[in-house]
Amino acid sequence: MKVLVINAGSSSIKYQLIDMANEKLLAKGLVERIGGEGSQLTHKVNGVATEIKQPMKDHSEGLRLVLNALIDEKIGVIKSLSEISAIGHRILHGGGKYSHATLINEEVIKDLKSYIPLGPLHMPANIQGIEACMKVMPGTKNVGVFDTAFHATMPDYAYMYAVPYSWYKDYGIRKYGFHGTSHEYIAKETAKVMGQDISKLKIISCHLGNGASVAAVKNGKCIDTSMGFTPLEGLVMGTRSGDIDPAVLEFVMDKTGMNVHEMLNALNKKSGLLGLSELSNDMRDVLKAEKEGNDKARLAVDKFVYSVKKYIGAYAAAMGGVDAISFSAGTGENRDDIRERIMEGLDFLGVDFDKQKNKDFIRGENFKISKDNSKVAVYIIPTDEEMSIARQTKEIIETK
Amino acid sequence: MKVLVINAGSSSIKYQLIDMANEKLLAKGLVERIGGEGSQLTHKVNGVATEIKQPMKDHSEGLRLVLNALIDEKIGVIKSLSEISAIGHRILHGGGKYSHATLINEEVIKDLKSYIPLGPLHMPANIQGIEACMKVMPGTKNVGVFDTAFHATMPDYAYMYAVPYSWYKDYGIRKYGFHGTSHEYIAKETAKVMGQDISKLKIISCHLGNGASVAAVKNGKCIDTSMGFTPLEGLVMGTRSGDIDPAVLEFVMDKTGMNVHEMLNALNKKSGLLGLSELSNDMRDVLKAEKEGNDKARLAVDKFVYSVKKYIGAYAAAMGGVDAISFSAGTGENRDDIRERIMEGLDFLGVDFDKQKNKDFIRGENFKISKDNSKVAVYIIPTDEEMSIARQTKEIIETK
Repeated sequence: MKVLVINAGSSSIKYQLIDMANEKLLAKGLVERIGGEGSQLTHKVNGVATEIKQPMKDHSEGLRLVLNALIDEKIGVIKSLSEISAIGHRILHGGGKYSHATLINEEVIKDLKSYIPLGPLHMPANIQGIEACMKVMPGTKNVGVFDTAFHATMPDYAYMYAVPYSWYKDYGIRKYGFHGTSHEYIAKETAKVMGQDISKLKIISCHLGNGASVAAVKNGKCIDTSMGFTPLEGLVMGTRSGDIDPAVLEFVMDKTGMNVHEMLNALNKKSGLLGLSELSNDMRDVLKAEKEGNDKARLAVDKFVYSVKKYIGAYAAAMGGVDAISFSAGTGENRDDIRERIMEGLDFLGVDFDKQKNKDFIRGENFKISKDNSKVAVYIIPTDEEMSIARQTKEIIETK
Repeated sequence: MKVLVINAGSSSIKYQLIDMANEKLLAKGLVERIGGEGSQLTHKVNGVATEIKQPMKDHSEGLRLVLNALIDEKIGVIKSLSEISAIGHRILHGGGKYSHATLINEEVIKDLKSYIPLGPLHMPANIQGIEACMKVMPGTKNVGVFDTAFHATMPDYAYMYAVPYSWYKDYGIRKYGFHGTSHEYIAKETAKVMGQDISKLKIISCHLGNGASVAAVKNGKCIDTSMGFTPLEGLVMGTRSGDIDPAVLEFVMDKTGMNVHEMLNALNKKSGLLGLSELSNDMRDVLKAEKEGNDKARLAVDKFVYSVKKYIGAYAAAMGGVDAISFSAGTGENRDDIRERIMEGLDFLGVDFDKQKNKDFIRGENFKISKDNSKVAVYIIPTDEEMSIARQTKEIIETK
């Protein structure tokens, strides 16, 4: 079975074609600037990229270009589109309703449209991606894999905010959590490398990229996660503030005359590492500046590290302990300095961290960075959301 | 040495007269509804209350009434006002600058006035209280004890938010923390009952009243606390939300048409236990409703308990472990059911909680509720902010 994985943005389509027989990536690529100037497709097979520049007025035209590339005599990887058994779509929001990957039909699309207010940037694009697939490949099944789904198992005291109850009932105000596909993948991989049954493990999954979140996975189920109603809450991120006193909004709006939309834009786009360092949202740049003696950069890194450290402690308390802590995504997978700073002082949890192994990690591989006798195991688990989407898509297709 | 402790609100003055020779409370009381209808003084000596109803147009008149009561032949406790060596004032905000109790002079008052925007409800009243004392007892020294002072030792990565750095520089946006006088008292008492040097202890202080906060006290210094720029941040409280995704404000303001002031009012006054339970801000009422099967009440209590539990875990991580956890204030001192629910599942920290002792506690006394062999000690420490203010006032007077 071959599965096409689609991640549609407002003017882009990321894709991967995966052969599920051996979980081999056949091709991947990106369509950019759909409906704009300089639109193009970059198609990669075995690391060899082909660029095709061509005007595309909408997602359907972009998708047609992708499909043509996939069956192209020179750069293609399959002979006919009929080889594609299903399409798995990355979808931001499943409301509180979709707790699992779901075969998409008209009713699901109706629901997705009702979630647009919860994800005004991503949801319309996600829906366009699905509709393009339905139009261009009418016989092929589409599966929605939701970034919120893995978090649907949170208990109410974790997902509810202590705000007027009517805000939940009337407007759907609650913690949804994001990065779910990634956290699910990380947690399952962690159990796999431990050789243990996930249903008996307490795992803290740290997805630390430009967007960053932590999830508490107890007995295979997510019981809490740091992102909330939106991806703004929780850890310090590249440009997002993470947790702050909500009263800050009122005070700064009064002082500056900003309206609430400008304020939220500042908290989402001008805060985090960028806001504190006044330099960059990229951890690599900020770490470099810190090394050169920039104290605001030092502060930004310290704040990021501290926010992760506190969530690890909080989620250990939430689960009644922890068996494994896993690091993933750009910063989590590649920065041994950040991992070392996060783990410093966490011995009380039962962690015996191996600083040398942490430095000797192999990029792209699951890697243990705690000592063999450590009560709490620590891992690097490179995340693979596309593979997770493909696996879930396969599962849905096979069971329906 | 006798110290008069003053806590001035917008239309009230709470006071205690304490003999520091033996730390004995001589008299205490409350002036209410200053400048309004039905203003009165309630003066208590040895549990016997006297009510004096009399119009008072301002804080000075209220204070004169208090002083007259203190030297009154029948209900008084001293012969002359000259016996009062100093007045200790509870002051909300020391603005990042005042990290200790301070002898009040014109410069300090100028600073306090500049902090009014940071505490628009409390600061003007606190200043009125000081000015009334200066006017009515011109020869007596006044000492300011700040609710933020104990938190002034937090490292920058704990007190800074990951927002644009200029918000800190231009508007003083940072975590200040509150309940400092209480947390300092609790931490010091905890070390005292442990018979250990506070400079070698990691203490988590839980002040759980209608307002509630947790502080991490490492080696005698506060390194983090759950309240932030204002008392809104952190734990679920009687009517305050505590931590929420800041994006909730934008979403609900858009839906309801509320402006940001109405929104902050809802988060401060209509949220917390009250908001979730839709019943009461009083933990006793909510617990009663929970027992009667009210599920929203159950949710409100669970959410409160869960928020405390997570902060305990987070602060253990922040300090690299914990030696003692202390409970204080209304709910913390008096509700064994809440304490038991908070401590459930925290064994991994090294806590061996004694459920029976927890039930057998004696009201108003320091009380150990962990087993003797527990690696982490757990205590009930009834807070006494007035005594703490009196002690700090005495110290300042004696060293200046």
